[in-house]
Amino acid sequence: MAKQTEALIGLDIGGTKIEAMAATPDLTLLAGAVIPTDSRTPDRLVSSIERAVDQALQRAGLPEARVAAMGAGAPGMVDHVTGEVRLAVNLNLHDYPLGPALAERFGCPVALENDVRLAAMGVYDHLRQGQPDRYRNLRDLAYISLGTGVAAGLILNGALYRGARGMAGEIGHIQVNQDGPLCNCGAHGCLEMYISGTAIGRMAEEALARGDGRSRASPLQRQRPATAKLVYAAARAGDPLAQAIADRVGDYVSRTLYAVLLAYDVEVLALGGGVVHAGDAFLKPVMAGVDRLRADLPLARKLLDPAMVAAAPARNMGAWGGVVMAAAEARRERV
Amino acid sequence: MAKQTEALIGLDIGGTKIEAMAATPDLTLLAGAVIPTDSRTPDRLVSSIERAVDQALQRAGLPEARVAAMGAGAPGMVDHVTGEVRLAVNLNLHDYPLGPALAERFGCPVALENDVRLAAMGVYDHLRQGQPDRYRNLRDLAYISLGTGVAAGLILNGALYRGARGMAGEIGHIQVNQDGPLCNCGAHGCLEMYISGTAIGRMAEEALARGDGRSRASPLQRQRPATAKLVYAAARAGDPLAQAIADRVGDYVSRTLYAVLLAYDVEVLALGGGVVHAGDAFLKPVMAGVDRLRADLPLARKLLDPAMVAAAPARNMGAWGGVVMAAAEARRERV
Repeated sequence: MAKQTEALIGLDIGGTKIEAMAATPDLTLLAGAVIPTDSRTPDRLVSSIERAVDQALQRAGLPEARVAAMGAGAPGMVDHVTGEVRLAVNLNLHDYPLGPALAERFGCPVALENDVRLAAMGVYDHLRQGQPDRYRNLRDLAYISLGTGVAAGLILNGALYRGARGMAGEIGHIQVNQDGPLCNCGAHGCLEMYISGTAIGRMAEEALARGDGRSRASPLQRQRPATAKLVYAAARAGDPLAQAIADRVGDYVSRTLYAVLLAYDVEVLALGGGVVHAGDAFLKPVMAGVDRLRADLPLARKLLDPAMVAAAPARNMGAWGGVVMAAAEARRERV
Repeated sequence: MAKQTEALIGLDIGGTKIEAMAATPDLTLLAGAVIPTDSRTPDRLVSSIERAVDQALQRAGLPEARVAAMGAGAPGMVDHVTGEVRLAVNLNLHDYPLGPALAERFGCPVALENDVRLAAMGVYDHLRQGQPDRYRNLRDLAYISLGTGVAAGLILNGALYRGARGMAGEIGHIQVNQDGPLCNCGAHGCLEMYISGTAIGRMAEEALARGDGRSRASPLQRQRPATAKLVYAAARAGDPLAQAIADRVGDYVSRTLYAVLLAYDVEVLALGGGVVHAGDAFLKPVMAGVDRLRADLPLARKLLDPAMVAAAPARNMGAWGGVVMAAAEARRERV
């Protein structure tokens, strides 16, 4: 292909890996690349991002393409106006102008967003483009990320909703039990103490400490500390201790989905984040909880019925959201 | 004034009284009127609305004015597109086309909204017009109504946010305690079982039944059943039993405000509804709770600091929101 070809780049910059996607200016996905994150210094981070982008362009058959614009997501507090990362513990960044650094490195406009918000944008676009018959007029969507923490990315009235201080959707710190375990934020019983990956590991450790798995050998006893991944693997293998935890989490998650609908009344609920990768072992207990709520409460029936409760599809929605934001940046540039 | 004068009408149609406001087409308030609601039949309701409007126009010195447009709020489920009241128990209406009925009676376009949403619109306009230096760029606001029930009216990204099924902001039915009292909706421990007017009366009755006020005569013992109004009057008079309830409610409300900020991150929180009419007896314990949260939690300090926690101002914000909606209707008509 010719040297003057232009590409859009979407980036999901995680604590362990960086995923880059290359797409045409009219939003056709060309190729992606995943490389490990090097977050020892900001400079090394930017260099590893560069390697991911180069690899994606190489795979797209466009090694010499000009990057027209870039959309990137980072886990943590991001100022989308200045492109500064206020705090991203897993990237080892604090008050670092990652957006401007990438803009300088690639010579193109860069939109930097919180990663959960970027994934919400990715799912929103994916549904509207992929299923136009059903979702052409979709205006309200919540993407709920269950990972190390818990947060919601929101598309409301057809636009990304960030709130006055960029904190909208920080539902992980809503207190659900005043007597619950102490959260990093200083409060007791925050939602993320019940449905985050971290919390699922903790619940398993607590159960093992209580001796819940002692009467019958549990695979959870062999590999300590327990993690959400191990819990769902054990549940899949038929371990009753792990299944009891999966059921409890499913119950909490279904109640969370109902609360999210009461707060935002979105048309689509999408679940994403590390915990959701456990697939059916995670999702089935959630759907069982949703069914119980529907059976018990007329209002839950009304709200949970038409809303899709879908695990995020296979394509990395964070990186795809980056491509969508990149397209918007490129349009703005041209005006 | 001349017969051809035009006026905008805003209406707050409550279960006990109807408030009408007359304003000029450029949103200058002329006069208001309040009359008792007659909800025995839909026809009588429409007639009592007509009396309120006539009285407001009379007081405005414009008895012959043409009503250019009308904005009205009803307590309950309202379809803002068709103008139908799906269900408003306190108005004795079920699937009744109140919007079209008013449009026919007055020969003008009518916007019908849920009353809490209309009040949110009223507060939003009131702040932007009344304090332009501070609120000209206000985009995100939540109006939290504490009355018989609990709900939030939302202005997000500068526009009224209703959600996909018009249920956004139904936070009163978010479960905060699985072992709490049974709510009308069928769930246990909904938020409105703790901070609605109904709940405050119930808490007082429970305390009296436990004998909490027995050691020392409480004015709450004299007038049964207890109501929120009686509780705050007794607290104002120095009754320790009533004060204990006011403190407990203040704690719950402050936690609710924090949760609302985590969910929506609005710039302004406005409190309204019957409970708020108790004034300082209600507000002081709320602010004490807010101060405790600020002292304990860095995230609460960040979110609760810049947000105004204000009781809705004296002007009926529901009726004023109606005037604002009427102006939008009149503009649409003219196009």
